[in-house]
Amino acid sequence: MGKKMSLLMFSGEYDKAMAALILANTAREMKMDVTMFFAFWGLFLLRDPESMSTEDKTTYEKMFGAMTPKGAEDLPLSKMNFSGLGKQMLLEMMEDDDAPKLIDFLEGARKKGVQFYGCKLSMDIMGFKKDELIPELEIATAQKFIEDASESDIQLFI
Amino acid sequence: MGKKMSLLMFSGEYDKAMAALILANTAREMKMDVTMFFAFWGLFLLRDPESMSTEDKTTYEKMFGAMTPKGAEDLPLSKMNFSGLGKQMLLEMMEDDDAPKLIDFLEGARKKGVQFYGCKLSMDIMGFKKDELIPELEIATAQKFIEDASESDIQLFI
Amino acid sequence: MGKKMSLLMFSGEYDKAMAALILANTAREMKMDVTMFFAFWGLFLLRDPESMSTEDKTTYEKMFGAMTPKGAEDLPLSKMNFSGLGKQMLLEMMEDDDAPKLIDFLEGARKKGVQFYGCKLSMDIMGFKKDELIPELEIATAQKFIEDASESDIQLFI
Repeated sequence: MGKKMSLLMFSGEYDKAMAALILANTAREMKMDVTMFFAFWGLFLLRDPESMSTEDKTTYEKMFGAMTPKGAEDLPLSKMNFSGLGKQMLLEMMEDDDAPKLIDFLEGARKKGVQFYGCKLSMDIMGFKKDELIPELEIATAQKFIEDASESDIQLFI
Repeated sequence: MGKKMSLLMFSGEYDKAMAALILANTAREMKMDVTMFFAFWGLFLLRDPESMSTEDKTTYEKMFGAMTPKGAEDLPLSKMNFSGLGKQMLLEMMEDDDAPKLIDFLEGARKKGVQFYGCKLSMDIMGFKKDELIPELEIATAQKFIEDASESDIQLFI
Repeated sequence: MGKKMSLLMFSGEYDKAMAALILANTAREMKMDVTMFFAFWGLFLLRDPESMSTEDKTTYEKMFGAMTPKGAEDLPLSKMNFSGLGKQMLLEMMEDDDAPKLIDFLEGARKKGVQFYGCKLSMDIMGFKKDELIPELEIATAQKFIEDASESDIQLFI
């Protein structure tokens, strides 16, 4: 039976999401099954900037949606972000090495058949609707993550 | 033999502790064994605000004890805390969805028989005494965590 | 067959690196195989302050090298760093308990035969050369980490 990797995506930061998606893409190329379970700030990575909506949201949910990063390329760095200056510098250094951007690794993971789950409780609290996020996303509870992770060869909280 | 989950609680932040305790409660409901090992900032979650003491502490330990969060509900968010304003907003959003608070998930984990360990070295350095923390806590060394984690189906550093 | 632990060192913070290296030393004393894979900010831990160089680097890489922590003892805390004051306080509290410093745990891990890998992509982007880092370091790709982690009994993202 094939090997399996299960990632709990919690942080919602450009650099950590990059590490996670590089692992996800690489593991798929190695024919492993890969599941990514997005909770709390992790969900920002999957927002589609073209599909934002304020419909059916409370005032807090609208404010929260407006204040927080809108998709992969909008995420801040986990350190040295310096209001975006540090991130800009890192992006230039990545370009100098012809390294793909975060959005490219996300596209890769989607094409390669990584399984995407969104934490139901986080989505309810933050007011994110299914059609504001990437279409592959399935909504799931913590039980799903635990079932999945307990059968995986690698589990990481990122 | 039953499945087992082992969490290393390092961060001491409201949102990460929430994720961890939701996993711990859910895994116990699924009849898994759950161990939580608290080190460094993670120990703040287990402080009992009613049992603070400065007895037998150095000046640094007293200062440290006074400057740091006093129990679960006093923890800051890992991001967007904005001196507590961001946390207040998240708490209101949680209340709108009738989601339990962190302290409720901690109570749940205690009632459901999650095993709590506190890192001896961290407690020595920070000057936390056993009776300032929740009574279920057993003091243990890194070796205990490693033994435990190496027999678990899920291990996460949170 | 012996047990194995595999750590993905991402964060580059004094306290998290301390936790990781305590685990690594303890696991080696328990006769486990230990692999540490350093990516992104994690690489700062392995910089040798005596072997810095700006040769063969772009302007950004030189700036980045100059702005970022130079080896283990130069790392900031993940929280309460207060421009180094909080770290100083923690160091004094550690000294009061005769706890070793981070650099000592790093030396221990090197002597005890922990396997050190550096992420090739991170090193390329940041412009770190092999001879600026500790000599034990082997350069490797994400595939190496995944192979390794999928055969480990413990895997943690730190």
